[in-house]
Amino acid sequence: MSWLVLHFIGIISYAASGAFVALEVEYSFVGVYALGLTTSFGGALFRNLIIGLPVSDLWDHATILTVLLTLSLIVLLPLTWINHWKQRSLFFDSIGLASFALQGAMSAKEYFADDLGIMILASMFTGVGGGMIRDIMAARKPLALKEEIHAILTILCAICIWLGWSDPLQLTMIVLIVIALRMSAIHYKWRLYLPSKKRG
Amino acid sequence: MSWLVLHFIGIISYAASGAFVALEVEYSFVGVYALGLTTSFGGALFRNLIIGLPVSDLWDHATILTVLLTLSLIVLLPLTWINHWKQRSLFFDSIGLASFALQGAMSAKEYFADDLGIMILASMFTGVGGGMIRDIMAARKPLALKEEIHAILTILCAICIWLGWSDPLQLTMIVLIVIALRMSAIHYKWRLYLPSKKRG
Amino acid sequence: MSWLVLHFIGIISYAASGAFVALEVEYSFVGVYALGLTTSFGGALFRNLIIGLPVSDLWDHATILTVLLTLSLIVLLPLTWINHWKQRSLFFDSIGLASFALQGAMSAKEYFADDLGIMILASMFTGVGGGMIRDIMAARKPLALKEEIHAILTILCAICIWLGWSDPLQLTMIVLIVIALRMSAIHYKWRLYLPSKKRG
Repeated sequence: MSWLVLHFIGIISYAASGAFVALEVEYSFVGVYALGLTTSFGGALFRNLIIGLPVSDLWDHATILTVLLTLSLIVLLPLTWINHWKQRSLFFDSIGLASFALQGAMSAKEYFADDLGIMILASMFTGVGGGMIRDIMAARKPLALKEEIHAILTILCAICIWLGWSDPLQLTMIVLIVIALRMSAIHYKWRLYLPSKKRG
Repeated sequence: MSWLVLHFIGIISYAASGAFVALEVEYSFVGVYALGLTTSFGGALFRNLIIGLPVSDLWDHATILTVLLTLSLIVLLPLTWINHWKQRSLFFDSIGLASFALQGAMSAKEYFADDLGIMILASMFTGVGGGMIRDIMAARKPLALKEEIHAILTILCAICIWLGWSDPLQLTMIVLIVIALRMSAIHYKWRLYLPSKKRG
Repeated sequence: MSWLVLHFIGIISYAASGAFVALEVEYSFVGVYALGLTTSFGGALFRNLIIGLPVSDLWDHATILTVLLTLSLIVLLPLTWINHWKQRSLFFDSIGLASFALQGAMSAKEYFADDLGIMILASMFTGVGGGMIRDIMAARKPLALKEEIHAILTILCAICIWLGWSDPLQLTMIVLIVIALRMSAIHYKWRLYLPSKKRG
């Protein structure tokens, strides 16, 4: 039950994040729908293509409807309302990241048993892939490739699923931890310095 | 019969539009072929991947040959000839948009009976997807995301197919209407203003 | 035997070329892994999607591990070491191009017997596709679309496979010829001028 709620909050906030990027780069309502749908479904789509699962699994009517409603609302609302909502979007976006990454890991586990490598890959693609395609479609450098925190959190999610966490309480816990870590990373400007990086 | 003619005019003009973009951004002949093939097949490819149809259906020898001949002609013709042809390209491009969108909707109808949602999605992907990938490969913001008219016309096509239009006369009618609407939209600079858009 | 060696040199140098591009555009370690994996597997992935082969064939544990080790090494090594290695990278990259293009053509031959068209397409996608997606993910114009030499060499590889060359000695020969041609093309600045190109 609580899992479904998280799933829908995740889907809604990913759809919204796509729509916001489209508005920022001055796309028309077509761009809002295209980037919203891409962000919501792109990650899962690539994941399924890559690990060889049927793509048709993704087309759940309730989910598609939720995404389309969210995007239509954003298209129809006046700009000031949207700007207001946008400031909270980082919080919802973190829920999206967690719920998508967990779903990715779980669907990989279902089909490939306990291969941690595939689970991490699936988790990453689902959690981060949609936003990456969104940024590419907006002719931007993908945010997820510039920052570290997204990837680290998806790996964390994959490991938890690999360890066998599966009841709603545990999953909710992971989501909360992911939110806390992401918000902290942004607030305290955590950066990972590696020998290969220019420090300038 | 007349349908096949439209199909080939559509394919040729989409291939050409890819080639023209490649020449504009100063790609080599490789870019001309890559963007030409992408524009011609990219939309249908993604559509099939997304709605779960076999991709091998796309590789029709006559179609591939037509695309390759068109692109080779463009590569070999002198630049002035190409510029001349280019000015009419918007007209052919509209035929392409209509014929691709109709094909997308029809192939979705064949496999998924009467689901209007899937038909619109398939119609959009086929009609607009190729051009979108073309623009991304040229490191541009996709035109189809900035304008509204493309998407509206593909939705129109999907609805006609959903309503059961299928004989060549009806399909030709749709193509003519799409061309008329698109040319008007460009000529009269139709724009759709939405509350979420900055009005500049 | 010698074929396997070439395969691994190819995979390593393609992974490295992705990592180098990521470092150039100042991506985090996430970008290094993402672009490295994309360059190594992206071409083969798209090839399989396009010619309709199962994608799961690609996930060979030894290959994945090699790629991940290469990328981890690059992430952990200090910047000066990387810059040193980079100057030789063109040489390794040519090995990658040849070994990828040959593999592409061979896997197409296996499934589609002797269709030269499909073999060229598969060879091109495998040889050049990964680098193209890498450049798109770095918000750059793909190098392979600006230059001609990549595509010409992949076609050469496809033709050799089509002619039935298959024993390790012959394949090694092709690789050596590809390296020689590519290095010459770069050194002597070979360009192909076509009527459609601006000469300015």
